[in-house]
Amino acid sequence: MKEICGGVCASKGFKANGVHCGIRKSKTKKDLALIVCDTICTCASVYTQNKVKGAPILVTKKNIQDGFAQAIICNSGNANTCNFDGEEKAQAMCNLVEKYCGIDSKNVVVASTGVIGQVLALEPIVSGMQQLVDGLAYDKSADAATAIMTTDTQMKEFAVEFVVDKKVCHIGGIAKGSGMIHPNMATLLCFLTTDVAISSSMLDKALHYVVDDTMNMVSIDGDTSTNDMLSILASGLAGNNVINEQNGDYTIFTDALMSILTLISKAVAKDGEGATKLLECHVVKAPSKLVAKKIAKSVVCSSLLKAAIFAADANWGRILCAIGYADAQFDINKIDVDMVSKTGKISVCKNGVGVEFSEEKAKVVLSDNEITVYVMCNDGDGEAKAWGCDLTYDYVKINADYRS
Amino acid sequence: MKEICGGVCASKGFKANGVHCGIRKSKTKKDLALIVCDTICTCASVYTQNKVKGAPILVTKKNIQDGFAQAIICNSGNANTCNFDGEEKAQAMCNLVEKYCGIDSKNVVVASTGVIGQVLALEPIVSGMQQLVDGLAYDKSADAATAIMTTDTQMKEFAVEFVVDKKVCHIGGIAKGSGMIHPNMATLLCFLTTDVAISSSMLDKALHYVVDDTMNMVSIDGDTSTNDMLSILASGLAGNNVINEQNGDYTIFTDALMSILTLISKAVAKDGEGATKLLECHVVKAPSKLVAKKIAKSVVCSSLLKAAIFAADANWGRILCAIGYADAQFDINKIDVDMVSKTGKISVCKNGVGVEFSEEKAKVVLSDNEITVYVMCNDGDGEAKAWGCDLTYDYVKINADYRS
Repeated sequence: MKEICGGVCASKGFKANGVHCGIRKSKTKKDLALIVCDTICTCASVYTQNKVKGAPILVTKKNIQDGFAQAIICNSGNANTCNFDGEEKAQAMCNLVEKYCGIDSKNVVVASTGVIGQVLALEPIVSGMQQLVDGLAYDKSADAATAIMTTDTQMKEFAVEFVVDKKVCHIGGIAKGSGMIHPNMATLLCFLTTDVAISSSMLDKALHYVVDDTMNMVSIDGDTSTNDMLSILASGLAGNNVINEQNGDYTIFTDALMSILTLISKAVAKDGEGATKLLECHVVKAPSKLVAKKIAKSVVCSSLLKAAIFAADANWGRILCAIGYADAQFDINKIDVDMVSKTGKISVCKNGVGVEFSEEKAKVVLSDNEITVYVMCNDGDGEAKAWGCDLTYDYVKINADYRS
Repeated sequence: MKEICGGVCASKGFKANGVHCGIRKSKTKKDLALIVCDTICTCASVYTQNKVKGAPILVTKKNIQDGFAQAIICNSGNANTCNFDGEEKAQAMCNLVEKYCGIDSKNVVVASTGVIGQVLALEPIVSGMQQLVDGLAYDKSADAATAIMTTDTQMKEFAVEFVVDKKVCHIGGIAKGSGMIHPNMATLLCFLTTDVAISSSMLDKALHYVVDDTMNMVSIDGDTSTNDMLSILASGLAGNNVINEQNGDYTIFTDALMSILTLISKAVAKDGEGATKLLECHVVKAPSKLVAKKIAKSVVCSSLLKAAIFAADANWGRILCAIGYADAQFDINKIDVDMVSKTGKISVCKNGVGVEFSEEKAKVVLSDNEITVYVMCNDGDGEAKAWGCDLTYDYVKINADYRS
């Protein structure tokens, strides 16, 4: 397997585009994205577990109930959530795809991201459709990736290449992260394409399995969004025998999906609102995988630790504290903790008790922009990783006046 | 019942003092507090549920196992947690109280607050004891309250007066809050005194009941400390018939305890690290009290909402979002939300959908320093309140370099 370029267009059969249609005031910021496939695709999605669900999620759920889709339309600048006419507007967006692309509106995945509770104006979308569709191309994943961004500072676009059944296959993806990121059995906005031939049910199974270890292990601020959605469309154009069961091909596909969603998860964490650093927690030798996951998530969610990481301060007591309030059973007195980055490693805790370390070296290790907190439980073989970021002045600044 | 002055010394029989002994470098900051009673007291405590427990908690648990205590000693500047010699040092602090006050070391509540994982130096405490004990007085609650502060900007000291069994009774208390505040079946540091005569078991029962609705409904940053502790000492000097059962006197006492712990909880929330505003969430008409509590806690814990409150921005979508991810069963489509302060009220949501409001009026309402988010579930009679604060640049600043 290798990482390649091309994003959602790396998979055979997929065109994409993104334009500024006017949902956002700033003319330099694209706000409408479209991904279409030359053929009908099998499709699977995971959605936010928030009880408040964006209207586009309700419409998408209905549309892909049969396991098939052919296009994804997504706007930024307005979440189309908590509005009296939300579903109607989301449906209208699907109808526009039918009108301009000749794709059945029931085969459209629709998504929105932005401010909650403001009525979505359809006019800009209607007026932008012709340009959006005219510009569709097999190499414009980046335009779509740019159009779904909100306060993200980096476009998130990835692709991997691998071999299934002797055919060269691909998975590509784009994502929008930044704030209100604490996926719960679902995720932020992420759209994946693949040319692997796979049934809807196996696609769904693989997606749920992988999301639990990737997107659901990311937290920027502990806030689970109302509009989280991850959809994957599989065109089958790679020409492999259709994956219909949990065989070797399924395993290869799942591994590839794990790779790309790990890349996207880390990119989302690293570009968290106001973030200057990626914070990874890698837990090993835990009593179980579940315990490892709970500890890892607890550590990357600690506001106090995140503020210390911002300052490159080896305040490891905050790590122990966060491990200690993880809702799981384990022996705190067996825990060792290292802090690791590209520039080195410091051991800060052995058997739950602090050990001496050089503050000077700690400053060097923690000044890197990717920090791993390595937690050894020494009590089993459970392992997990979680990703977050530091907490900075800019997080407050960005969120103190997001609407204006 | 009325609020009065005097803090822990408002209750008959209690002396207090606080001094600078040298645990902290700054000579202007007191760092050692002592509260002693003229007589042996019944005693009850609640402790942090963090698996990492400060050594003083382990020693206190052992000391008050029999339900009796006569003194409280507490230092700030060092948490005496995650150290190899923590229990030994905590025991030594109790021994010092025995040596200087003639109070059995087994009747001492000991507490520490400050940085985790740095060995506690006993020398400053030893050298400060004489001055600490010489200065004990029936009117120096404020000295003790000041000595237990860490990054608190306000001293927290309260007292209430009420009548039980025709006797005038009191409860007084001091607390330390600020950061790492998300009590879980326990609380931050809080020491209460009362002159009510009550058995240890009834005192314990009342304390657990009240703490669940007060201290456990506070969150500053979602981080449950390793050293949370709330202890109450009851001298019995008010002369009422001893409360031995759940009778009318017990109810009066519990109500008084609820009053003072509500005052302290709000004071702790309002003085959260970096906070400029108290954020209260008041949930009514919920399917149950438990559902109301979960919704209230979810709202005051939302980083996004807290940042919006800092900016006096009526970003009510974030309130709905936080309600939506509360881990409880209720109908989101029945929910109404108002935002309220001393300067007015705005309705922002009816039946789960946004309603129009004047942004100008919203700015006025939200510019107050005490904001209530009033959530009507319209689906039962469960009610609860939770308290938090806004998220500000100063929270990041304070925690980005707490150790230095």
